[in-house]
Amino acid sequence: MNPGKSDKHLKIGMLGCGVVGSQVARLMLESSEDLNARSGATLELVKIAVRDLKTERPGINPAILTTDADSVVNDPDIDIVIEVMGGIEPARTLVLQAMQNGKSVVTANKAMLGRHGAEMFKAAMKNKVDLYYEASVAGAIPILRPMGESLAGDYVRRVMGIVNGTTNYILTKMDESGASFADALKEAQALGYAEADPTADVEGFDAAAKIAILATLAFHTEVIDTEVSREGISGITAEDVAVAKSLGLVVKLIAIAELNNKEEISVRVHPTMLARTHPLASVRDSYNAVFVEAESAGELMFYGRGAGGAPTASAILGDLVEVARHKVDGGLGAPETDYADLDMAPIGSMPTRYLIRLEVLDIPGVLASVANTFAHHNISIQTVRQTGRDDRAELIVMTHMALDKDLANTVAELAKLDTVKEVASVIRVEGTLS
Amino acid sequence: MNPGKSDKHLKIGMLGCGVVGSQVARLMLESSEDLNARSGATLELVKIAVRDLKTERPGINPAILTTDADSVVNDPDIDIVIEVMGGIEPARTLVLQAMQNGKSVVTANKAMLGRHGAEMFKAAMKNKVDLYYEASVAGAIPILRPMGESLAGDYVRRVMGIVNGTTNYILTKMDESGASFADALKEAQALGYAEADPTADVEGFDAAAKIAILATLAFHTEVIDTEVSREGISGITAEDVAVAKSLGLVVKLIAIAELNNKEEISVRVHPTMLARTHPLASVRDSYNAVFVEAESAGELMFYGRGAGGAPTASAILGDLVEVARHKVDGGLGAPETDYADLDMAPIGSMPTRYLIRLEVLDIPGVLASVANTFAHHNISIQTVRQTGRDDRAELIVMTHMALDKDLANTVAELAKLDTVKEVASVIRVEGTLS
Repeated sequence: MNPGKSDKHLKIGMLGCGVVGSQVARLMLESSEDLNARSGATLELVKIAVRDLKTERPGINPAILTTDADSVVNDPDIDIVIEVMGGIEPARTLVLQAMQNGKSVVTANKAMLGRHGAEMFKAAMKNKVDLYYEASVAGAIPILRPMGESLAGDYVRRVMGIVNGTTNYILTKMDESGASFADALKEAQALGYAEADPTADVEGFDAAAKIAILATLAFHTEVIDTEVSREGISGITAEDVAVAKSLGLVVKLIAIAELNNKEEISVRVHPTMLARTHPLASVRDSYNAVFVEAESAGELMFYGRGAGGAPTASAILGDLVEVARHKVDGGLGAPETDYADLDMAPIGSMPTRYLIRLEVLDIPGVLASVANTFAHHNISIQTVRQTGRDDRAELIVMTHMALDKDLANTVAELAKLDTVKEVASVIRVEGTLS
Repeated sequence: MNPGKSDKHLKIGMLGCGVVGSQVARLMLESSEDLNARSGATLELVKIAVRDLKTERPGINPAILTTDADSVVNDPDIDIVIEVMGGIEPARTLVLQAMQNGKSVVTANKAMLGRHGAEMFKAAMKNKVDLYYEASVAGAIPILRPMGESLAGDYVRRVMGIVNGTTNYILTKMDESGASFADALKEAQALGYAEADPTADVEGFDAAAKIAILATLAFHTEVIDTEVSREGISGITAEDVAVAKSLGLVVKLIAIAELNNKEEISVRVHPTMLARTHPLASVRDSYNAVFVEAESAGELMFYGRGAGGAPTASAILGDLVEVARHKVDGGLGAPETDYADLDMAPIGSMPTRYLIRLEVLDIPGVLASVANTFAHHNISIQTVRQTGRDDRAELIVMTHMALDKDLANTVAELAKLDTVKEVASVIRVEGTLS
């Protein structure tokens, strides 16, 4: 049952050698016997393209480093290219060139695939090479292969995930300690969980790229990151988190891709209040999880580390073994398909529940005027809570299912009411309430 | 990006047409367009072997039914065989015959693979066919492919799962309502969650077969069900469940495969008290979940429906699409490997914590004699709680890590003490205590 320590020798090139790449290099060296037994070939890392040759890289033979990335993708001796440089360009051009040269590619690059996935998967098919990318979404968690292969005989209705560890860390801290967004972000930066410029994470761009990749797989339809309706967490206040807590809810940055009843796809990233009984509510700190609802399989959840050098490297090596096996035995992995070619749902057409916090005047008739405004836009109110703190009066309104556009019109009208001082926040709610 | 509605036509035979098989047949009919687009071939179900031709099978053309299973596996026109008859024989002989005839096989049969996996995977390799079996463990949850492929570049240290829905349903009811084992079992039987003869489920045989399959994959070493140390839940009393609850624990039937520090494999199934904060503790009713600890990936969890016609059929169709793709494009799935060939840890050599309930005489000196007995066998006590109900006195002892064999010797000696009326229960404890 040993596929065999064959005499086959495969040469591997790598683009980039940062946090993830250095772990890949270390593990390839340490696990070479096992990788050989599992893939059926000796895998040798022969060339690594880096930006700076002078950086200390313990355990890596300096002779295999180069600053010439083209020389990796054009080297006729290299069979497989691992791309861990990140960013759209020059990664995209290099990967396309590698595939054109007949090399299979393993990548962790969500930005590149979230934007140019269709082009790249087409290029892989055309050149009859593999393009594997498990590490691009949710780090070490095997989610793309289960979605693309294990669920290939089923129909996914909905994918809902916590796919950005930085924002989940920040929101967990805000929930646990009552910290402000700014303080929690500072803590995340001090611990290396957030970048100096945290925009990509906190404004939801990273999550948008990942849900675009998941949606493409789940619905067999090309979805790109710029089609994702996106809202980040920088507007979430300590008060929002406290109100959620008092209602048995928790605020999470959720990425959702789902089908509506017209079989159109809605894809969005936004802060969401989740019932604490929802499986995703207990996903804490920098952990990730993806919740999938499929017609036959029912509810599935995949949980684990969404980032970090070693977890991401684990996903890359899993892909590498599979791609190497194909080089040894022939065959290719399941191709991406966009045969279904579903339409995108118009923005504002997916119903959600909302929690709206209003600062209002503490006078009679306020509730009536607010309730009228909701009714006027056909939005049904589930509960209203009126609270007074110091000299302020606050209304917390939870709606039944309502459309984006109706809600937006309601909020605009509420803001104009004489009785409303401020619409303090509007946040979506998902999952059954406890 | 459509792998193509090719002209390729693949003929499928099926062995068995019960709860799972009838769902497979239904979905193949309803999803034929999509299965074609995803696999690249028209998949036609041409023959089904059943025990009784007279059973009503709505939606299935009676002309494709036969009672002659041999005629399915020997039909030269059939490309792929789906085996959903269950049980070791005649399934094993039929599947071996099918593979010898060059047919790829998709199976949901844990009993067959838990016992004869090695033989069957060898036969698949020898005959250059696929043997896919995602549905055999944890129903719809994609766990085998992630374990065998996505983690192929990593080292699994431990797999711990709730892999039997029947016992999880029974234990959930006992925990929620305080029911006895007998009453909870009756309820499970009335709902169709438990068989008339529930032995395979409640005594852990089903879970043992599944953890043998998981251990084989995780540790690249042949593990068979009879090597699994096994204890069922029929001895669990309402009192055990109540005591667990009072300590912030919950009783679950857990299947564990792990490496000890000598890199030997320990595989076991037994009732376990889990801290309620452990991710597996919140897996309720008939749901399944598998928790994996890998060196680089860290902690992963896979959660979903572990049984039922449609969820199991979803897993089978996922495998069918992949196996069909290989028939169209060439190549084969990752073979099972047992290259690592690790030893099994001697029974009794894995340290665990234990909770022991003793009925004792209500006289001075009892605690001293009990504590002495533990000390005599080098077992360190973490906590002791003494309770008195009516005229009975009870000692609840929680140990630190202790070896099976030391614990067994301790219990034998405790039972002989004049001060101990009865050793009421001995249950293992896993996970950090809250």
